[in-house]
Order: sequence, then structure tokens, then C-alpha cells
Amino acid sequence: MRGAPAIGVVAALGLVAAFARAGAPSRDAICAGIDRLAQARPTAVNLPWAMRRLRRVVDESPADGAALLDALADEAERILAEDQAMCAAIGRHGESLILDGARVLTHCNAGALATSGIGTALAPVYTAVAAGRRVSVIACETRPLLQGSRITAWELEQAGIPVTVCTDSMAASLMREGRVDLVIVGADRIAANGDVANKIGTYAHAVAARHHAIPFYVAAPSSSVDPDTRDGDAIPIEQRHADEVRRLGDRLLAPERVAVHNPAFDVTPAALVTAIVTERGVTRPPYRFAR
Amino acid sequence: MRGAPAIGVVAALGLVAAFARAGAPSRDAICAGIDRLAQARPTAVNLPWAMRRLRRVVDESPADGAALLDALADEAERILAEDQAMCAAIGRHGESLILDGARVLTHCNAGALATSGIGTALAPVYTAVAAGRRVSVIACETRPLLQGSRITAWELEQAGIPVTVCTDSMAASLMREGRVDLVIVGADRIAANGDVANKIGTYAHAVAARHHAIPFYVAAPSSSVDPDTRDGDAIPIEQRHADEVRRLGDRLLAPERVAVHNPAFDVTPAALVTAIVTERGVTRPPYRFAR
Repeated sequence: MRGAPAIGVVAALGLVAAFARAGAPSRDAICAGIDRLAQARPTAVNLPWAMRRLRRVVDESPADGAALLDALADEAERILAEDQAMCAAIGRHGESLILDGARVLTHCNAGALATSGIGTALAPVYTAVAAGRRVSVIACETRPLLQGSRITAWELEQAGIPVTVCTDSMAASLMREGRVDLVIVGADRIAANGDVANKIGTYAHAVAARHHAIPFYVAAPSSSVDPDTRDGDAIPIEQRHADEVRRLGDRLLAPERVAVHNPAFDVTPAALVTAIVTERGVTRPPYRFAR
Repeated sequence: MRGAPAIGVVAALGLVAAFARAGAPSRDAICAGIDRLAQARPTAVNLPWAMRRLRRVVDESPADGAALLDALADEAERILAEDQAMCAAIGRHGESLILDGARVLTHCNAGALATSGIGTALAPVYTAVAAGRRVSVIACETRPLLQGSRITAWELEQAGIPVTVCTDSMAASLMREGRVDLVIVGADRIAANGDVANKIGTYAHAVAARHHAIPFYVAAPSSSVDPDTRDGDAIPIEQRHADEVRRLGDRLLAPERVAVHNPAFDVTPAALVTAIVTERGVTRPPYRFAR
């Protein structure tokens, strides 16, 4: 399961479905399930955010059993509908950043397959294309898990939007050749000061974009903003298994026992972020996200 | 076959062996073979350089048949011996750049498996380790062909030098975290003004190194310097098949027909290169390589 917003939505719907199948468990069991799922992934903030919403329903509802489950199901459905509306709104706000003929570089997948709607990073692309603009996308493959080549390229091809895959290491060179007009990526968590945690490799693109004076945009739901996280240093970064880098399928890509560095995310300081697009609008520096 | 210096050496030895097996062909056939091999790869300059040396032997020798072949074999052996001595000299000159405890980031493979000796980029590492310094290496995997994870990691592990593999996209983030002291890479061609063509992904590391004020060194034989190439814009970049990015073995990593960008090399402008180490010494900017 991937895509920070989708993880939140699916966790909420899935938890309610699991409770229903278990025959309306006790309030304590429901709270334990919510709390446990809230901690399943450390970096993205949408999952604990969705779980807090379910938890509030439990806390505020005097109901029990089937009535409580109905209230939770309603809340999960609301999260889903809001996610779809959020994507559409990000598209509307971000669309103006994408001029006719724009060549957009993106990393990982923050498109329709990462959300319930038209995505976050890709929402402005879809919306600009729907408005009649010609837009092409460079999808960085996004090692180690290749979400860019496997998912973004597939999704855009299905949508009939011109897409070219490149390795992550080619992005800076394409920028130097004047072949990238802007970068848009999603976010797994945005700190109060605008520092952005996103898929590993995002930071390298941000540094390269700054070096070439190319705008670097982040598009994410406001549920990805965590005002309780002061800055990027306070965002925990999930470290994943070495085999994600060392193997592909049953193929060994590096010596069996060699040390491997495999953080799932990196942090891009706010100073490198030209603007942050949420469903509420386009925010530019200095970023100060409050509750 | 890979590794710019090794390609030159092996082409010279291989050509002579092939001529010998063919039973001492005519001077014309020998010249045609040399000229054809000189153009087999467009970017690196060591191959045409080695072929020019063989060509000069033919042009300057009045001999024919077996006597000419002997002269060519002597020249090919000299190229091999010079390559080994070149590696050792790069190691001696570059060693001082690597302090005790240094954490060195490298890209692709410019080590013992890319040359006849102890490598170019890795020669200073081997020499510093032999001098008793503690050195660890971060080997970027180097998509798409993974020379870093497949070759550099293996080579350093065999040599007992601590090595960690990371994806190319992690390098900038490691620099930001203060975990890289210097970058050393090889070169496929160095223009007269110091612009460097090297494996795709090198430029991104150079940009990131500059952003973090980390020294970025290039180590290569002087045969990689091409004084006839004014600057990086004049270096032809080999474009390779899309399937190198799209497939790994029989596994499809991206949609079958999606467009793929796959240059084998990129150009790093001299302005981002802290110093160039050749067998002749350490050169710092401004670079002006003449014949």
C-alpha cells in the first residue's frame, strides 16, 4: 500500500470493514485497533491524521456496537469524499503554475494511484491538460521501488499525457540542458516551517532545481501539514530493508552482504521550495503553518 | 567491456591478437581495423587515443607482415604497462586529498576493474588505505547499468575497504546529513577547459557537492584529456537503448512502449570540479589543457 493520502483513506475504510466483519467489537478493542494502525508507518502524517478522526468519533459518540460502527463508517466515507475533493482543489489551485507547453519533472507517484482522486503532484497536470494546455511529464524512475517508472509512467500513458521515463540520476542533466520547466512532487509530511519529507531522491531534485533556477513545487493535502512538527529535523525517516536496493525480484544487484543505505524518504528544506499547493491554495515562503 | 582506460588497453591488445590470428594481414587491412575500432564508442577518448598510437606505429614502421605485428604488439604492451603505472601515479598524487577517516562518495566504477592497475577514481583510496589511513566509501549504484553496486561494491569488499551501497538519489541527502567528506569520480573525456564527461549521474553529484561545499574531484589518466575538444558542449554523448532503463533481465520496469531517456554520460562543467588528478599531478582551476 502506498501514497500518503491513499494510505489514510484506505486505513480508515479498511479498519471499519475489519470491525464490521469482527461483529462490532468493544469500544476498547476499536480504540486499540485505531491506535495501533496510527503507528504503522512513521513518516507520512495522513495515516495518524485519519486515525485521529476515527478516534474522535469514538470519543464523542455515546453509542456502542453497530451504532458506533455506523458512525465510524460515515466518517471513513467522509474522509474518502474529502480526499477526492482535495485532489480536485489542488488541481484548480496548481493549474496556473503550468503554462502551455510546460515540461514537468516529477518523482515517485503522487497521482491518481496515490489518492482517491486525481492525485496531488499530478492534479495540476491533469487539470491543465483538461483546460487544453499541452503538458509533458518527465517521470523519474524513483529507485529503489520504481514508483515513477512502474506507476506514474503507466498512469500518465493511460491518461494520454506524453511521458518520458528517466533514471533519477538524469534529472539534473536534463535541467542543465534546459529540458525541464518546473518540478512538482508530493509530500509525506510538511513541517510547520515548510520543510518537506517526501520520497527519497526528492531533495536531490530540489538542489538541482535551485542550481538551475527552476521552480520546485510541492503539492499535498493540508492533512500532510503537521504544525506540531517544528521542522524537517523532527520528522522521523523510515529506514527500509537493504534488500530493496540489493535485489530486484530474485536478482542480486549488489554483493550479498554489502552494507546498504535505504531511507524511504528525505527532507527538503523550505528554502528550496518555491511554493506549496494544498486544497486551500498556493502558499509561498516564508511558510508558517499553524493549527 | 567498460572502463574508459581498460577499453583502450584491451582494444589495443585485442586488435593485435586478432591480427595475429588472421595471419598478418596487409597494412591496409590493419589500418582499416584500427580506424574502425577507434570509432566504436563516441564519448570516451582513451579508445581513439590507443588506436592513434597503433596507427602511428604502422605509419612509422617500414615493416610488413610479422615484423609489423611484433611492433604493434610491443606498443600494445607498452600501453598496458603505462596504464598500470598511470593508476599508481594517480594514486600517489591523489592520496593527499584523502585524510584519515575520510568518507568518500563515488559513482560508477573507476577502480581496478576499469583499468589495468588500481583504477583512477579509486586509486587515491587504495593508496591512502595502503598508507594506513581509515577510508570508507559510499558507492552509488549507478543506474541504469548498476556498475556501482555490481562492480565498485564487489571490488572494495574484496579489498577489505568498508563500502556502503546507496541509490544515486540518496547521495545529495547523505551530503546534507554531513556523511560525505569528498566525491571522487573518473572521466570518459576531459575537454581543454576542464569540462568532464563521465557516467550519467556524475553531474547531479557535482551539483549537490557544490551546494554542500564538499570537494568534487575527478581522477583520470591524461589520455582522457582531449585538448582538441574545446568544452563539454563539443563532447558527443552516447545515447543507449531504452531497454537498459525499461528492463532488468527479463523483468519489465516500465510500460513496454513508454518513451525513455537514456544517455550513457553527462557533462560536468569545470566550474564544479575542485581538482583534476592525473598521473602528472593535481590540477586546480582554471583548467587549460594544451597538447
